[in-house]
Amino acid sequence: MSDPSDAEKTARHNEKMKKIKAARDRMMQDKTEEKGLIMVHTGPGKGKSSSGFGMILRCIAHGMPCAVVQFIKGNWVTGEAEMLRNRFSDECRFFISGEGFTWETQDRDRDIAAAQNGWSIAKEQIRDPEMKFVLLDEINIALRYDYIDIDEVVDFLLHEKPAMTHVCLTGRNAKPELIEAADLVTEMSLVKHPFRDGIKAQKGVEF
Amino acid sequence: MSDPSDAEKTARHNEKMKKIKAARDRMMQDKTEEKGLIMVHTGPGKGKSSSGFGMILRCIAHGMPCAVVQFIKGNWVTGEAEMLRNRFSDECRFFISGEGFTWETQDRDRDIAAAQNGWSIAKEQIRDPEMKFVLLDEINIALRYDYIDIDEVVDFLLHEKPAMTHVCLTGRNAKPELIEAADLVTEMSLVKHPFRDGIKAQKGVEF
Repeated sequence: MSDPSDAEKTARHNEKMKKIKAARDRMMQDKTEEKGLIMVHTGPGKGKSSSGFGMILRCIAHGMPCAVVQFIKGNWVTGEAEMLRNRFSDECRFFISGEGFTWETQDRDRDIAAAQNGWSIAKEQIRDPEMKFVLLDEINIALRYDYIDIDEVVDFLLHEKPAMTHVCLTGRNAKPELIEAADLVTEMSLVKHPFRDGIKAQKGVEF
Repeated sequence: MSDPSDAEKTARHNEKMKKIKAARDRMMQDKTEEKGLIMVHTGPGKGKSSSGFGMILRCIAHGMPCAVVQFIKGNWVTGEAEMLRNRFSDECRFFISGEGFTWETQDRDRDIAAAQNGWSIAKEQIRDPEMKFVLLDEINIALRYDYIDIDEVVDFLLHEKPAMTHVCLTGRNAKPELIEAADLVTEMSLVKHPFRDGIKAQKGVEF
């Protein structure tokens, strides 16, 4: 870079980055605590479940025992379910409680029984002292329809979850009680979606 | 459920679900097309990269050839990077172009060279007719600082990307040109984050 204005730009940039780094280092000094987090992924956008599964992948990579309880997508053959069951059954426990989205089963009693069964499994996994990370995939849908009692879930997460265990709860329409109790809440918003243009759900992207 | 009001509630629920299912089935009838999507994960919330890696996991599960180019997190040892390199090197090609966040390197010229190198690799992977899914992780940061030219990226994605190849671009502050060109855009918003309470980045969650 022989142009002096370029050299100047570079110098200014490096100075700015030095300041950002110093501010960031100061900020990170206070970030010394570790705790098991209650995480919520909600909103109408994509990425709620897939980012939960991305964290499961991280846990497997780090050798951290983890578990997935799928509440709603029971009758879909998803890539992640296949993968976890066929290739990572030692590293990640995988459970399915539901039988499909509620408009597929059209049987409220059966849905309630499936959701309650999922919640029993979830509690057992979270209580397990070996466990480091539990993903409760699409549990928000079961909570929204009151198939599982929100107060019981919040009470369990706040008072019975082991201190260092992470729990991630996904699904649209997270209840306010859950958002209040959570440490980390991300809302996935839909800016643009190809369904609007007639594109169907595709392998590798949606499942 | 012997209580008549419960029976009624169940009947009403089942009726409602039947209507939702019919509406959904009608909607899905039009969703017949497949195409390679340009996907963008942006916003300040969590889940942009991890949901990209969740989709990579889906692709690996389905036996779809895929690739990751990491633009910025080069010097972090992330769980997903370890995992992909050690256990899925046959299924997923993994490349690192950057050397860390820009405030870590404090060297603009080196950052530009790394970003440009990443973009060359990205184009090569996307052009490969075998390839089904390419994740350009944190490329938005390189685009934001103009280390890579946004017009060149958009032009390439719209005109040179093979029609059936999916490309997912992640990172905060996605440029408007990219959002305009994309098929699917998700904004991850921060509702609550534990950094505010002094909790540090943790294994399995952030990396």
